[in-house]
Amino acid sequence: MVHSIADIARALGLQAEGALDLIVTRVAEPAAATPEALALAMDPKYAEGLSNGQARAAILWPGADWRAFGLEAAIFAPRPRWAMAGVSQVMDPGYEFGVGVHPMAYIDPTAQVAEGARIGPFATVGAHSQIGPGARIGANASIAEDVVIGADLTLHAGARIAARCVIGERFIGQPNSVVGGCGFSFVTPEPSAAEDVRATLSGTREIRQQKWQRINSLGAVRIGDDVELGANSSIDRGTVRDTVIGSGSKIDSLCQIGHNVQMGEDCMMCGMAGIAGSARIGNRVLLAGKSAVNDNIFVGDDVIVGGAARVFTNVPSGRAILGDPATKIETQLEIRKALRRLPRLAATVAELQKAIRGQKDS
Amino acid sequence: MVHSIADIARALGLQAEGALDLIVTRVAEPAAATPEALALAMDPKYAEGLSNGQARAAILWPGADWRAFGLEAAIFAPRPRWAMAGVSQVMDPGYEFGVGVHPMAYIDPTAQVAEGARIGPFATVGAHSQIGPGARIGANASIAEDVVIGADLTLHAGARIAARCVIGERFIGQPNSVVGGCGFSFVTPEPSAAEDVRATLSGTREIRQQKWQRINSLGAVRIGDDVELGANSSIDRGTVRDTVIGSGSKIDSLCQIGHNVQMGEDCMMCGMAGIAGSARIGNRVLLAGKSAVNDNIFVGDDVIVGGAARVFTNVPSGRAILGDPATKIETQLEIRKALRRLPRLAATVAELQKAIRGQKDS
Amino acid sequence: MVHSIADIARALGLQAEGALDLIVTRVAEPAAATPEALALAMDPKYAEGLSNGQARAAILWPGADWRAFGLEAAIFAPRPRWAMAGVSQVMDPGYEFGVGVHPMAYIDPTAQVAEGARIGPFATVGAHSQIGPGARIGANASIAEDVVIGADLTLHAGARIAARCVIGERFIGQPNSVVGGCGFSFVTPEPSAAEDVRATLSGTREIRQQKWQRINSLGAVRIGDDVELGANSSIDRGTVRDTVIGSGSKIDSLCQIGHNVQMGEDCMMCGMAGIAGSARIGNRVLLAGKSAVNDNIFVGDDVIVGGAARVFTNVPSGRAILGDPATKIETQLEIRKALRRLPRLAATVAELQKAIRGQKDS
Repeated sequence: MVHSIADIARALGLQAEGALDLIVTRVAEPAAATPEALALAMDPKYAEGLSNGQARAAILWPGADWRAFGLEAAIFAPRPRWAMAGVSQVMDPGYEFGVGVHPMAYIDPTAQVAEGARIGPFATVGAHSQIGPGARIGANASIAEDVVIGADLTLHAGARIAARCVIGERFIGQPNSVVGGCGFSFVTPEPSAAEDVRATLSGTREIRQQKWQRINSLGAVRIGDDVELGANSSIDRGTVRDTVIGSGSKIDSLCQIGHNVQMGEDCMMCGMAGIAGSARIGNRVLLAGKSAVNDNIFVGDDVIVGGAARVFTNVPSGRAILGDPATKIETQLEIRKALRRLPRLAATVAELQKAIRGQKDS
Repeated sequence: MVHSIADIARALGLQAEGALDLIVTRVAEPAAATPEALALAMDPKYAEGLSNGQARAAILWPGADWRAFGLEAAIFAPRPRWAMAGVSQVMDPGYEFGVGVHPMAYIDPTAQVAEGARIGPFATVGAHSQIGPGARIGANASIAEDVVIGADLTLHAGARIAARCVIGERFIGQPNSVVGGCGFSFVTPEPSAAEDVRATLSGTREIRQQKWQRINSLGAVRIGDDVELGANSSIDRGTVRDTVIGSGSKIDSLCQIGHNVQMGEDCMMCGMAGIAGSARIGNRVLLAGKSAVNDNIFVGDDVIVGGAARVFTNVPSGRAILGDPATKIETQLEIRKALRRLPRLAATVAELQKAIRGQKDS
Repeated sequence: MVHSIADIARALGLQAEGALDLIVTRVAEPAAATPEALALAMDPKYAEGLSNGQARAAILWPGADWRAFGLEAAIFAPRPRWAMAGVSQVMDPGYEFGVGVHPMAYIDPTAQVAEGARIGPFATVGAHSQIGPGARIGANASIAEDVVIGADLTLHAGARIAARCVIGERFIGQPNSVVGGCGFSFVTPEPSAAEDVRATLSGTREIRQQKWQRINSLGAVRIGDDVELGANSSIDRGTVRDTVIGSGSKIDSLCQIGHNVQMGEDCMMCGMAGIAGSARIGNRVLLAGKSAVNDNIFVGDDVIVGGAARVFTNVPSGRAILGDPATKIETQLEIRKALRRLPRLAATVAELQKAIRGQKDS
């Protein structure tokens, strides 16, 4: 990726100063920068690294005195991570998917793969599936039968799309991710012990020895545009209706989305988060790492679920929640503070008890 | 899947009324039902949808006035989810595994695959493995050497069965699931810091710089009949004896079962639950989503472990537990109630302290 | 694996007595031992099993009276798990990776695979990748382009190594593990609601409807020597610098390591643990099962993170922590004890309140 400072600044819509025709071939952290690298030092706290590195050009914060850092050119970024997004796209070496369809890939004769596809060895596309233009499918990835996928698919090595799933444009499936495994849905002939416990919130119940009967998943998974699914993450298919993921939603690695879940647009689901069956998630919901939403729960728009929080009850739009069970973040922080002081509180109460007893005795 | 109402009712063992020869080709939620769909409205709360949809036939609750919903035929289901299990099997379009063994599959010459197998492209069966009749093996799935699997295996795309594992009949492995990865077992020459902490429950200990030595897994995984393993889930092999999963047990997506675990029959392990090494789990145990059982723990028959609960101590049969660390569900709900009130309790104690101090001063 | 007692004792560096030329072909738990098995009974609590089994030889604790158990030979192990490590290596039947490169594997013509490689069907090695001597690569595993891997690689079925990752010697990748999925890094044009909440620790904020812009991962993953990665686990690549895993670190199944993480040497990360983006983990850190480290956190050398603990703040070297949020283990155990007594404490406070009120009224 060879670019001039002027080209990069233009692509990012940012101001630049100095030797605008200077050429850089990669980005680097300031201290690790070689002369051909563009150093990333959008915050003054990274400025020190510039002196240790050998950068001739950098992206800096607005107003930075670039000459003082010995630089020959600089680009100025008012919102560092936003600039990072732009520069990461300009400088990305990308991934190798080969040229055309690899001779060792298997495309079913009834499948339709549009122009521009690059498909790696041992990848498969099943019967009657339709793949839009510009698809990139990695080694050993597989798309089953009757799948429909829009333009510019990126499916990395070992990712799986199961039968009858429908996916929009620009989907990215990371390695070994799974779309469309069966829902986990079983039932016993008579009400099971678990059903009793959920109904009564009590451990007392009749023990019955029963076998699980499988409820097959007749639905599939329907995914909008611009969705990404992380490595080893899974979205299960629906029971009757489809499981739905709205456009613009991003799902990290090792996440699990259960059957029938309806997720809105532009959500963000961080690593190891889980959503149990039939939960409904609004738009722009953020689920932090390791958080969990119970089955059949409704989470409103713009809700923020904090790290490792467990959502057992419906959440109105706009709320930020935390804890297990999750409460409003302010409530949870108060509870946590009180919890840290709990051993002391218990000691205080013991003293008070003694004092009162003393009064009575006297 | 084209069926008459009479056929479906008979298959489900349920009563039907009206135009029993009416033909349906799929199931649908009431509001989404087209004329050829069988609407699923087993609870009165879904009845309203029937007026919005175009269903001519539905499965309803016993005693429902089907004519009033404009239907031509109805089936009556006293236990909705049980009926759902039946109808989902009758109406399932199923998955495409091709016809016979795909020319691009690799079956080792010493492997024995019984009659009726359907095996997809780039699937593999290793040396000396024996696969029972009726196997369906998806694209890119792999079975290693010396594996024995009973009849009617369903192994979806990318699922892995490692060497020497033994699996009963009707096993279902969802995409990218793994049976028989190595156990996670390491040891240091001298006792490690972690061993000290576990022994003393104190953070104080000697720091030693040691390398981990690997304990190889000489055991494999032994699985009974009618077991299902979810997408991206994993069952590790045993150290000396095999890891064992009893017949009828169902394991959801992104679950982890450690080395040497002994799980009984008809258990249910929901999404993202984990069982650490050498734990023993009884029969009909239910592990809710994201719950975890510590290593070497014993969990008795019919125990119900609530969502995200952490089991650090043995659990007697029949108990329902919740929380981190898990306690009886009733105890935990009491603790949680008290916890919500904890900030107020702290304030009350502060007032009492003041009142007492006031008394002393006066 | 056919060995004499003398051979095994010598390999383990342990003392043996009795018929040292006795031949064993496998190891077994005492009660399950057949005459050709070496029984493992390194602790007196397993001794009873010896009478039930048919073992002629066993590994016992030092000083055990082996003749009294009817044995013909015995090896004595002062540290049982250490002996287990040795015996598990001597007696391991190992895994079948075939002979040479399978005709159905795909090695890119520009890749360099050193001598002694055994590569299974449908495995791939991408353009310009360099694989050291003695590699064992399972069926359907894939290595992308520009990867560099040291000697004695073991990559099990379906494991993935993405582009430009660099890995040392003796790496073990369990089935369906992933090295080098993209980092999960997105940004909105204006500060997002989540940024507001993190800054203020309050749920109150402006709701903005914004799209996520992707930050591509320009870095890769760099892994030292003797690292193991468990089934369905994932290590994400870095944004600018590489994600780094130090030599000797062991990672269990279903773990997730986010972009930019720097993990030191000889760490142990147990099942379902997660480390969020840009966290720095020292040497010899132990992360117990289901524990989690928040993004950008620093965890010092020799820290022990207890089961399911959530690390939200930096941790100084040598500390043992537990809980959500994690605190020193001693503090957490005190909190937990107080928590169990909390309902009673609340009742006590209510009584005190009544008593004080009674005093005032009288």
